[in-house]
Amino acid sequence: MGKIKRQQKSLCEIRFNSQCENSEVIKFRNNRWLRRKSIKYKDLLTNWAAVKRTPLVKSKALKFEVRYFEILPKGYTSLEYHNHAHVVICIKGKGKLRLGNKYKILKYLDIAYIAPNEIHQLLNPYDEPFGFFCIVDAERDKPIEVKI
Amino acid sequence: MGKIKRQQKSLCEIRFNSQCENSEVIKFRNNRWLRRKSIKYKDLLTNWAAVKRTPLVKSKALKFEVRYFEILPKGYTSLEYHNHAHVVICIKGKGKLRLGNKYKILKYLDIAYIAPNEIHQLLNPYDEPFGFFCIVDAERDKPIEVKI
Repeated sequence: MGKIKRQQKSLCEIRFNSQCENSEVIKFRNNRWLRRKSIKYKDLLTNWAAVKRTPLVKSKALKFEVRYFEILPKGYTSLEYHNHAHVVICIKGKGKLRLGNKYKILKYLDIAYIAPNEIHQLLNPYDEPFGFFCIVDAERDKPIEVKI
Repeated sequence: MGKIKRQQKSLCEIRFNSQCENSEVIKFRNNRWLRRKSIKYKDLLTNWAAVKRTPLVKSKALKFEVRYFEILPKGYTSLEYHNHAHVVICIKGKGKLRLGNKYKILKYLDIAYIAPNEIHQLLNPYDEPFGFFCIVDAERDKPIEVKI
């Protein structure tokens, strides 16, 4: 019985785990990816609002990770910098990318490269959800939040 | 004069180069990315048809590269394997992914993780172009083509 319980827990963990080992197709149906679930964007001690993060692909065989973020209207990520670079690809709605004190609009399939140590933030001042892939190195430093 | 010529050549190379150094937004307009151009998928000695490759983002600061591939109807990539893994994200039309002797359909925003040394191929047996991002480690081994 103990063994069955352990197996069930293990299967449940696998079911929503972005860690890949064997080849797989992660289907996108009804506006979400099967076998992937959104988690909290960050701890609540940092300054952000209305952001969800969905880990999509990570693997011991890859030097990068693919995640999906969605920012609801009026939401924003934390204003931060770090030594690792980002690639952001907008796939839903539109949003704004702050780079230092400049703002750039990101629309469908626009791609942003955010260089190391650039102070940046993603914001949604619009009326519909803003969704984007964010691809990063698997090994990376912790972001440093900029206090305003 | 020599200096100006060298600068012009350099600017021209930068204009269509996927190598990123400073932060930038690569806009997607009229069905293509600005400042990025498609190149030949592979040399002609391998068995493939009707595939275009567009390098989108690479950087000394990233351990991965983002490319876009588009396969016209009846086209296919080479049947191959390699030690590095792939992440494929369908963003246009639909297509088929061969994994060994099995075929899986990839539709809009479906994501495929192709594990190391898996024999694979992407095919478009449909009537509209099949487009997908393919994200790979920057340092990777050369594919080995499987002869049929």
